[in-house]
Amino acid sequence: MKEIAAFEVGIKLGALFHQFVGMPVSLKNAEILEKAMKSCIMLQPYVAGAEVRIDRKRLSEKLSEFNYCSLEGDMIYARVEVEVEGIKAIGVLRWDDEKKYPMMSLVTE
Amino acid sequence: MKEIAAFEVGIKLGALFHQFVGMPVSLKNAEILEKAMKSCIMLQPYVAGAEVRIDRKRLSEKLSEFNYCSLEGDMIYARVEVEVEGIKAIGVLRWDDEKKYPMMSLVTE
Amino acid sequence: MKEIAAFEVGIKLGALFHQFVGMPVSLKNAEILEKAMKSCIMLQPYVAGAEVRIDRKRLSEKLSEFNYCSLEGDMIYARVEVEVEGIKAIGVLRWDDEKKYPMMSLVTE
Amino acid sequence: MKEIAAFEVGIKLGALFHQFVGMPVSLKNAEILEKAMKSCIMLQPYVAGAEVRIDRKRLSEKLSEFNYCSLEGDMIYARVEVEVEGIKAIGVLRWDDEKKYPMMSLVTE
Repeated sequence: MKEIAAFEVGIKLGALFHQFVGMPVSLKNAEILEKAMKSCIMLQPYVAGAEVRIDRKRLSEKLSEFNYCSLEGDMIYARVEVEVEGIKAIGVLRWDDEKKYPMMSLVTE
Repeated sequence: MKEIAAFEVGIKLGALFHQFVGMPVSLKNAEILEKAMKSCIMLQPYVAGAEVRIDRKRLSEKLSEFNYCSLEGDMIYARVEVEVEGIKAIGVLRWDDEKKYPMMSLVTE
Repeated sequence: MKEIAAFEVGIKLGALFHQFVGMPVSLKNAEILEKAMKSCIMLQPYVAGAEVRIDRKRLSEKLSEFNYCSLEGDMIYARVEVEVEGIKAIGVLRWDDEKKYPMMSLVTE
Repeated sequence: MKEIAAFEVGIKLGALFHQFVGMPVSLKNAEILEKAMKSCIMLQPYVAGAEVRIDRKRLSEKLSEFNYCSLEGDMIYARVEVEVEGIKAIGVLRWDDEKKYPMMSLVTE
């Protein structure tokens, strides 16, 4: 069961990243995008909780001349909690500046 | 100018379709997804107006056992209006059942 | 370790689905798309093997008047093998007609 | 007709960007991804020619610790030619460093 819960939370993080990277984002619509992303995670099987945040500082640094940019990996933080037959697993997506990589990790509370 | 306006509205419709197809959608979050998609279009250069609708009937027919499905071309209607130096162009994305295709067309008001 | 391997293989399947659903596909380019998708999986951490197949029969049934269609969940089969510090996990993505859902499962060899 | 050709080429560039941004890419699979992207454009209505290039230098600079990265707007060059009833239109997607933006433009030969 622990493995299945871990597998399921992995699916959710991989899906989130690859579905939404590339979206036009600015300070104006970041909040609605966070809500939309969270709503998509919450529909998926076994999800017990989700949090999605777009880093406003990174976003501000990447704004184009047109005052928005594409959502990129270094702007996204997500935490997803799944529960499979009473067994929980929590996964986190967080940009790692040193690795230059959107690290996804299983976390223990 | 008319060509540039037409080009710009084409970009917006192509972008919309390919960014968002695949999103987890249900009757619960369809409205927030419509708002998120609209907000993304509205950020882009020259956009003067946008409308996005997810067809609830099609959506209902495609719901999986888990009570949601992936957003597909036959569920999306969009209308985007751009204005480039005073010249308007309007484009519409609408599923065509006969062609089995998400038709995108320039429309004249 | 088993949990981490399961988590990692979940990430790969979620990523595959949400990155590539929506791609224009026909009998002409299905093979190159299979290779491209496989190549993307193979780059990711811990992946030891991958297989991706697009169902030509389903594809043929969905072709539009323009002789291609969008890649959808019911056309994709994928099998991904990861190895984390000697521990293997295998995940499969396969459309389930009854559930109307792209089921992702951990498999035991 | 000129407007329709311009509209159609806009669709193709918008679609290309938003479908493929986010793909795992490295020096190993860049060529197969270029071919896959080109093959997707070539299927679409009215397309008479297409060229897609991934900038290897930018790619190299963005490689993560795992030796690949996500495809981003500043790595993509594309040129698409459409022909609608004898009328041609050519569109180009090219990163603009000053605007920090993936500029899409109609070009005259």
